[in-house]
Amino acid sequence: MFDQVRIVLINTTHPGNIGAVARAMKNMGLSRLYLVDPQEFPDPVAERRASGATDILDHAVVVSTLDEALAGCHFVVGTSARGRKIPWPVVNPRDLAQEVFVQTQARDNAEVAILFGREARGLTNEELQRCNWHVHIPSDPEFSSLNLAMAVQVVAYELRMKYLESLEIEAPHSNMKPMVSPLDGGWDVEPASVDEVELFLEHLERTLIDIDFHDPEHPRQLMARLRRLYQRCCLDKMELNILRGILRSTQKVAGTWGAQPPRSQ
Amino acid sequence: MFDQVRIVLINTTHPGNIGAVARAMKNMGLSRLYLVDPQEFPDPVAERRASGATDILDHAVVVSTLDEALAGCHFVVGTSARGRKIPWPVVNPRDLAQEVFVQTQARDNAEVAILFGREARGLTNEELQRCNWHVHIPSDPEFSSLNLAMAVQVVAYELRMKYLESLEIEAPHSNMKPMVSPLDGGWDVEPASVDEVELFLEHLERTLIDIDFHDPEHPRQLMARLRRLYQRCCLDKMELNILRGILRSTQKVAGTWGAQPPRSQ
Repeated sequence: MFDQVRIVLINTTHPGNIGAVARAMKNMGLSRLYLVDPQEFPDPVAERRASGATDILDHAVVVSTLDEALAGCHFVVGTSARGRKIPWPVVNPRDLAQEVFVQTQARDNAEVAILFGREARGLTNEELQRCNWHVHIPSDPEFSSLNLAMAVQVVAYELRMKYLESLEIEAPHSNMKPMVSPLDGGWDVEPASVDEVELFLEHLERTLIDIDFHDPEHPRQLMARLRRLYQRCCLDKMELNILRGILRSTQKVAGTWGAQPPRSQ
Repeated sequence: MFDQVRIVLINTTHPGNIGAVARAMKNMGLSRLYLVDPQEFPDPVAERRASGATDILDHAVVVSTLDEALAGCHFVVGTSARGRKIPWPVVNPRDLAQEVFVQTQARDNAEVAILFGREARGLTNEELQRCNWHVHIPSDPEFSSLNLAMAVQVVAYELRMKYLESLEIEAPHSNMKPMVSPLDGGWDVEPASVDEVELFLEHLERTLIDIDFHDPEHPRQLMARLRRLYQRCCLDKMELNILRGILRSTQKVAGTWGAQPPRSQ
């Protein structure tokens, strides 16, 4: 379970928080830290706050874009305060841990990313819309903003609690388990990866422009709503191929197929 | 529940940790902080790390002995690593929260104290033996020592989870409930009805024929797969309208819109 989970920190301001996150992860048995465009890293303050979890800092994957951090992932969850304009699927850390456990048990190659945003401003709307689900730590609405490392601690704690609970159950592959998406064991087709879904969403947007359904100058919330829909489904690879095929056929009818080739077909 | 719980920090070395504890408490709805013989308090570093939870620091009860901090309490719990010479009753934070909930519900004047020891050495044996129970945060045995404020965060989080869970018994749509589709409480748009989804699937099939993607003579499993996909999502009414709009625009481009009108638009 733990080696299939990436903790992704985006654009972290304070290196001390990165160190505190490393310590919290190692305390709970997690090890895979991704840093997207950190403001100061490596840094002696991070080392100090890691209090011996320096191996996690040493092996941290530092990248410049979220895309790089998510490459190869099948399920992406972002930490969020409540009350977005378009509500996204949202769970608490305990339900998230349950889902991560089920997915990582179902498939050895399952990869889950959990995103944590900037200290002052969290994740951007665009980053939040890259997520299949959001996780909300149920803080007091009057004083709701947790320190970054505290948020990681709570989520990592729930993952560990779930893991320990599973050791006691001893029957992880019971057929009592619900199977509701390609991420669960027993599905017929492999899940699509997030980068494949991203290419589909790009292709979808281009096609909607081609058929005059979508005007990027007046986007309203169209692509956000379609993104929420298709990410909520957790598409499998065959479904993704079918949807791409429909877009190709649509573009052929519109006379735009090949005019502005998508990055990948 | 929360106003019957004291968080007691014993002989804390770093004022930053006291501030971080105050923030973690306030995030989770706790307010009663007791400081037994803190090494530096008050201190501007504590204020800074409290990030707005300064009211908790201002009202902190500073005492010189554990006895003073425990005066009037009925139940005392100390955070502990495993493996004391004389094993004490030990629970994890979730079971502790359950117990605190039961006790504080049972009697209005119940008072619970949860003790957290020094950063470097935790609680002494004598202090641990003052406790009814010990609470152990199930960390990785290879790297088991949590930061002080992180430990408070985890315990406070479990208290809040228990509190919210108790509200749910009366209010089934509290914010504890996972919300992953339009069928859950809190979604922004009403779910589509099955007959609306059925009309959409008919319209989809007709459109796929129009653009030469689908041949009803050789259907393979195409419509079954698309049906599984869109039904799995539990579409909301706005998503359904968007998808119908896309089909209309596609048919206009294909020159088939209106040729064989769908039963409903």
